[in-house]
Amino acid sequence: MRLSIINGPNLNMLGQREPGIYGNKSLKEIEKGLLVLGEKYKIELDFFQSNIEGELVDAIQQSGNRCDGIILNAAAYTHTSVAVRDAIAAIRIPVIEVHLSNPHTREYFRHTSLIADVCRGSIAGFGDESYTLALLWFERQR
Amino acid sequence: MRLSIINGPNLNMLGQREPGIYGNKSLKEIEKGLLVLGEKYKIELDFFQSNIEGELVDAIQQSGNRCDGIILNAAAYTHTSVAVRDAIAAIRIPVIEVHLSNPHTREYFRHTSLIADVCRGSIAGFGDESYTLALLWFERQR
Amino acid sequence: MRLSIINGPNLNMLGQREPGIYGNKSLKEIEKGLLVLGEKYKIELDFFQSNIEGELVDAIQQSGNRCDGIILNAAAYTHTSVAVRDAIAAIRIPVIEVHLSNPHTREYFRHTSLIADVCRGSIAGFGDESYTLALLWFERQR
Amino acid sequence: MRLSIINGPNLNMLGQREPGIYGNKSLKEIEKGLLVLGEKYKIELDFFQSNIEGELVDAIQQSGNRCDGIILNAAAYTHTSVAVRDAIAAIRIPVIEVHLSNPHTREYFRHTSLIADVCRGSIAGFGDESYTLALLWFERQR
Amino acid sequence: MRLSIINGPNLNMLGQREPGIYGNKSLKEIEKGLLVLGEKYKIELDFFQSNIEGELVDAIQQSGNRCDGIILNAAAYTHTSVAVRDAIAAIRIPVIEVHLSNPHTREYFRHTSLIADVCRGSIAGFGDESYTLALLWFERQR
Amino acid sequence: MRLSIINGPNLNMLGQREPGIYGNKSLKEIEKGLLVLGEKYKIELDFFQSNIEGELVDAIQQSGNRCDGIILNAAAYTHTSVAVRDAIAAIRIPVIEVHLSNPHTREYFRHTSLIADVCRGSIAGFGDESYTLALLWFERQR
Amino acid sequence: MRLSIINGPNLNMLGQREPGIYGNKSLKEIEKGLLVLGEKYKIELDFFQSNIEGELVDAIQQSGNRCDGIILNAAAYTHTSVAVRDAIAAIRIPVIEVHLSNPHTREYFRHTSLIADVCRGSIAGFGDESYTLALLWFERQR
Amino acid sequence: MRLSIINGPNLNMLGQREPGIYGNKSLKEIEKGLLVLGEKYKIELDFFQSNIEGELVDAIQQSGNRCDGIILNAAAYTHTSVAVRDAIAAIRIPVIEVHLSNPHTREYFRHTSLIADVCRGSIAGFGDESYTLALLWFERQR
Amino acid sequence: MRLSIINGPNLNMLGQREPGIYGNKSLKEIEKGLLVLGEKYKIELDFFQSNIEGELVDAIQQSGNRCDGIILNAAAYTHTSVAVRDAIAAIRIPVIEVHLSNPHTREYFRHTSLIADVCRGSIAGFGDESYTLALLWFERQR
Amino acid sequence: MRLSIINGPNLNMLGQREPGIYGNKSLKEIEKGLLVLGEKYKIELDFFQSNIEGELVDAIQQSGNRCDGIILNAAAYTHTSVAVRDAIAAIRIPVIEVHLSNPHTREYFRHTSLIADVCRGSIAGFGDESYTLALLWFERQR
Amino acid sequence: MRLSIINGPNLNMLGQREPGIYGNKSLKEIEKGLLVLGEKYKIELDFFQSNIEGELVDAIQQSGNRCDGIILNAAAYTHTSVAVRDAIAAIRIPVIEVHLSNPHTREYFRHTSLIADVCRGSIAGFGDESYTLALLWFERQR
Amino acid sequence: MRLSIINGPNLNMLGQREPGIYGNKSLKEIEKGLLVLGEKYKIELDFFQSNIEGELVDAIQQSGNRCDGIILNAAAYTHTSVAVRDAIAAIRIPVIEVHLSNPHTREYFRHTSLIADVCRGSIAGFGDESYTLALLWFERQR
Repeated sequence: MRLSIINGPNLNMLGQREPGIYGNKSLKEIEKGLLVLGEKYKIELDFFQSNIEGELVDAIQQSGNRCDGIILNAAAYTHTSVAVRDAIAAIRIPVIEVHLSNPHTREYFRHTSLIADVCRGSIAGFGDESYTLALLWFERQR
Repeated sequence: MRLSIINGPNLNMLGQREPGIYGNKSLKEIEKGLLVLGEKYKIELDFFQSNIEGELVDAIQQSGNRCDGIILNAAAYTHTSVAVRDAIAAIRIPVIEVHLSNPHTREYFRHTSLIADVCRGSIAGFGDESYTLALLWFERQR
Repeated sequence: MRLSIINGPNLNMLGQREPGIYGNKSLKEIEKGLLVLGEKYKIELDFFQSNIEGELVDAIQQSGNRCDGIILNAAAYTHTSVAVRDAIAAIRIPVIEVHLSNPHTREYFRHTSLIADVCRGSIAGFGDESYTLALLWFERQR
Repeated sequence: MRLSIINGPNLNMLGQREPGIYGNKSLKEIEKGLLVLGEKYKIELDFFQSNIEGELVDAIQQSGNRCDGIILNAAAYTHTSVAVRDAIAAIRIPVIEVHLSNPHTREYFRHTSLIADVCRGSIAGFGDESYTLALLWFERQR
Repeated sequence: MRLSIINGPNLNMLGQREPGIYGNKSLKEIEKGLLVLGEKYKIELDFFQSNIEGELVDAIQQSGNRCDGIILNAAAYTHTSVAVRDAIAAIRIPVIEVHLSNPHTREYFRHTSLIADVCRGSIAGFGDESYTLALLWFERQR
Repeated sequence: MRLSIINGPNLNMLGQREPGIYGNKSLKEIEKGLLVLGEKYKIELDFFQSNIEGELVDAIQQSGNRCDGIILNAAAYTHTSVAVRDAIAAIRIPVIEVHLSNPHTREYFRHTSLIADVCRGSIAGFGDESYTLALLWFERQR
Repeated sequence: MRLSIINGPNLNMLGQREPGIYGNKSLKEIEKGLLVLGEKYKIELDFFQSNIEGELVDAIQQSGNRCDGIILNAAAYTHTSVAVRDAIAAIRIPVIEVHLSNPHTREYFRHTSLIADVCRGSIAGFGDESYTLALLWFERQR
Repeated sequence: MRLSIINGPNLNMLGQREPGIYGNKSLKEIEKGLLVLGEKYKIELDFFQSNIEGELVDAIQQSGNRCDGIILNAAAYTHTSVAVRDAIAAIRIPVIEVHLSNPHTREYFRHTSLIADVCRGSIAGFGDESYTLALLWFERQR
Repeated sequence: MRLSIINGPNLNMLGQREPGIYGNKSLKEIEKGLLVLGEKYKIELDFFQSNIEGELVDAIQQSGNRCDGIILNAAAYTHTSVAVRDAIAAIRIPVIEVHLSNPHTREYFRHTSLIADVCRGSIAGFGDESYTLALLWFERQR
Repeated sequence: MRLSIINGPNLNMLGQREPGIYGNKSLKEIEKGLLVLGEKYKIELDFFQSNIEGELVDAIQQSGNRCDGIILNAAAYTHTSVAVRDAIAAIRIPVIEVHLSNPHTREYFRHTSLIADVCRGSIAGFGDESYTLALLWFERQR
Repeated sequence: MRLSIINGPNLNMLGQREPGIYGNKSLKEIEKGLLVLGEKYKIELDFFQSNIEGELVDAIQQSGNRCDGIILNAAAYTHTSVAVRDAIAAIRIPVIEVHLSNPHTREYFRHTSLIADVCRGSIAGFGDESYTLALLWFERQR
Repeated sequence: MRLSIINGPNLNMLGQREPGIYGNKSLKEIEKGLLVLGEKYKIELDFFQSNIEGELVDAIQQSGNRCDGIILNAAAYTHTSVAVRDAIAAIRIPVIEVHLSNPHTREYFRHTSLIADVCRGSIAGFGDESYTLALLWFERQR
């Protein structure tokens, strides 16, 4: 099993950026934790981060051919990108939407998700454990 | 550790009701699966289901005194009950919002959650695995 | 043939409550009139009234197993209850929505029906004749 | 007793048009069935159909002078015609709004009725039985 | 000078229809009063009334070629007809919008005028004097 | 007969201010024209202009005791002043709302009138002839 | 004189629940304070609290037969319950709406009151003094 | 203790203005009643009324320096004045919002209060008793 | 192949009406140009224009029996007519929506199309070339 | 003549992606078909596709200097990109908006076009024939 | 060069009022700072502050005749006053809108500016430096 | 002191693009003018322009580490980019929002700024002087 873990804009700033909301771990540290888990369960993991909407679209399309599932934190693009949505709809593997914080506790423009209804499921509010739970779900499907 | 698993209106109909959306398992079967998991992880589980908004409010208040966390599928009341919301805000243990299906793929009046922002996190769209993932999260917090 | 006639909140006040809108007959008197009609057409009738949303959900679920149809005046819950709606969607017998007055001639928050689109049909504005017409429809389906 | 049965735009296409929604009977066949019922109850029936909003306004005005009641399926004009509404408000006989299908199960622009609150009552969702129930109501008022 | 006085749907019912709102004069009587005034000021008057939206469009177009101005009570179509609006925009003579009652004191759907901004001016709320004032304006322009 | 002609904010700038919209006549010139008409018809005229919302409220209240009617161009306060509205509702003489231009041809925030439904009638779009027509109406009521 | 003091959902948690908003007094303590006042003014007091919407409907209906007035803190149901509203409209004794905090300083979904316009008056923001002021009003009416 | 009782636009018309809504007492009579009460409780009272928004702003600012509290009936400005709101927020003494009638039973534009959330509490619907209750609250705080 | 080219309200005014928006060609000239093209491609063309909504409904229904496709410029009725929409949905031949100008560059009430989603395709903004492109599409389908 | 044919996000997935909506042809195949047509009419064609919003902005800007027109399928960015809109407004050659499917038959967030009113015309719903019709229009302008 | 610096309601409270938002400087101190700057650049400065909407209208009108520009902090009236807007539109000198804080970081009713589009430019969020920057702009235009 | 001057989409077209709105200066010329000013005040300036949302996010993040402030003209992304907003919120140096024209005088979708409330201040409508004023502000902070 091979999963693609795709992170959207400003998540490269994790650890530095508003730690009250997003926690103190950097993205690298989160990825390391997931790698440990991946090894335990024999799941290969690809990591990708970009601030550019279209590069995320590319990454989703390519993962659709190469992986068995995607764990996607689309960050800001969750709320504005029809293009990311269309990319998810265009592939056949399951995509899990994850968020570190719960968008509903924040500004009103984070209450709308354009991607929720083309994802298999969504997990929000557990910090980096959101990624872990998504990975566990894939593991349990085998 | 002791968790309260609270299910809202019409979830007593699981297995019979619109199986295309909610799956074939009855609530009893889902609870049995969770009990197995609970035993494995040494977590005691209390189950409660009611169709009555105020009884759910009561159950949430009482769990607040007796348990370490709540896994809550408020079903229809997710979208209409300020009372359930106030009950969650009134207690101090973490509450995880779960849904079998992803409300965002359904009618517009299921797109609003009055409880999301007083819950610790939310998990939706994984069928009965939504409960499992919530339980795993509690297990991982110890 | 057996029909369940379910009445929602405040309909136990009929006759006393705002007679300019709801007429002078008590709920008991309306039920008596329907019993006469039921006998004439060999239709058994079950009556239920409650002010409690969840008890109406229970009643709808149970009628789904025991009766051939439901005549439902959900009163105030017509406009606010996703739970009642889900209960109707969860059973397989036809449900007819009835109202004594025409909700569209009243306050704006009575113009929305959360249950209309899961009911077979709706009849509104004929006073207690609304129940009669619903019963006649069931009779004509045989 | 004399009733006017007035049908609005595209109802001349009944039987051909989207039978999944509107059924297989033509308007002629529905009218025949009502004539049989009319004879049984000694009710004279006038039939009128037009695709033109203003001709429906004319028909409603004239029925107001000549008949004891109107059974009106305003079809598309239900949702857009203030003129039809004003015509109903301008006459003194009771008007019953009928619909073959339940508008609330269809597109959002069919959820608004500009005429509901000037009609005595409304009956929707019973196919051609909607007309029958309206006729039975008039019969029961005598 | 020649003016066209065009009246929309249900205004043929004046005098009979809701006299509390529209007064006791029939349209014929209003037109007679205007004729007396027209003679006094040497203004020829053409009268037209129709319940049919498209016939009003026709009348407006034809008056555009034959008259020096239009006094238009579009009644219900004021609020719903883009076609009447386009007809007014398509001609070059001034059109005065008149109303017997003040639409702003009535239902919300009468608060919008689709034609106000293509008319030269509007006069509302003076009963049949609304027509008189419009005619006086034309007289004062000579 | 004695009429009060009350003008709201910025109308003291008439003639200088955006003449494309409001014409070239100053408020003084308009008032002179009305005085001529007033003399002809034996109508005494009081003039008042203020940029201050509350002074207009005062003026309306006082005219209510002293005059037989008010011609009111509330200008910007038409759209924002509940206080002016309440003043009109608090007196018993008829108030006619006038506007030089037609507010519906201008910015969206001029499309709402808070005072229209407490005025007897409204006249808009005729330049300073709007005042004249209002005065003629009072004259015709005697 | 006999008054019914009815408290809605989660008010049984007073003192424990979000004391920053609701204060430190328990509902029992508030009721004790009111009893002292009641004795002073010779007013009998009935107390009722429930988390269940329909039980509040029952209590309001029964108080309508037995008491001279109701002091109602409907809490969350203030904003969502058409049923509570209908119960108030169905009885003849005056109902005073009270709130501990001022709902307008809180979340947007607390800014709407479905019951305000069927209550005689409303008092909000004074903590438990809101109940006291309501009681004083009843006392002053004698 | 010294309180400032500030009344907004058109309240100088009390007794004359729409007595069905506002009662028969003049503002003078209400103030007299309050003076009696003030004497009884040793509370000095300052009275101010103005129709001018900015003068109310001035009065609120000055009371902030000179008094221990404000009883404010902002009338129409309740719904439109950000300036009055800012004045309340700029001072440190408690302000109680009062209304004679309950704004929620009236036109929709009276349902919004721009000042509610900067006031300590609000009392509405008790006629001139609304002022009395506010005064009693101040008395009870000592 | 036989096509029906149906034009809605005010299009009989083409060439005269607002040429800045609609161009200088009359409807007759546009039809002539299409006839030349029709001859070239052996396509028979029926032309119909009406200002009356219901006559367009009739024309669409009849074309459904007699032609292979419809090119429809519904003009103002595009934005207001559910009846025209229902007529299109009731027939089986493809209907192409055309507009001379692009409705999106004009008033906001032209931004909504009630017919777009029951038409096969839409072409807007090319002046009379919009009709030509629609005809070419039919030609290319053979 | 030289045209630029620019395709937005996810259109590189054509043929694979939701063929029920977008058809079975790949973008390459569509481009081949257009090249054949281009040769026939002596029109040079440049092709560009990108998933990245800003690269589309670049491509539009550059085509503005080098080509005689643009055929643009902005896909998802049609509904969200003010940047693409501004790029179109910044150049001087005509841009034709094309869509394979009719956006109005799909999700509500596809009903808004931010670019429609800066394009010369729009063609939607004809599958890959939408491009062909756009090309034919350019050909006919020579 | 002569500039008018006009300040709206509650700005006379600066220094005392919510210093967390508005800073510690009084209006007098800000004006002193500007006078120093004015002397340096040979710019005469007129200062005006009022809490009364109409006095601000007067001041803007008079500055239009006497000065070369206006620096306007309309405070609360920015969001509610069409009259202030009309006054700005009625004069010919440039008006710069300034704000101490950034209205977009505050309550939603401060997000709308009725005057922004008739001002030459706007500067917000720099505390009293907002005035300085506006003055520097005028200086740079010479 | 080192400032980063970041320009968003289509600003590379300045001088060519809609000069009526944006002026005749190219971006290069504006940057030259700022360099002169920078030298005068000993402020180092970094310039960056991109049409790609994510590259702007990158630039903002990097400037956060390397500079003392950002002058940002996000152009079209001002209104649509939550990602740009999040980047600003993620860094610690002050960001000034600038616009050449005043967005409030343009299309409605330019009236919303997603970034205003995370910027220190905003300056709009002064053409290239907007940048100058922002730079002067930074200079004055030293």
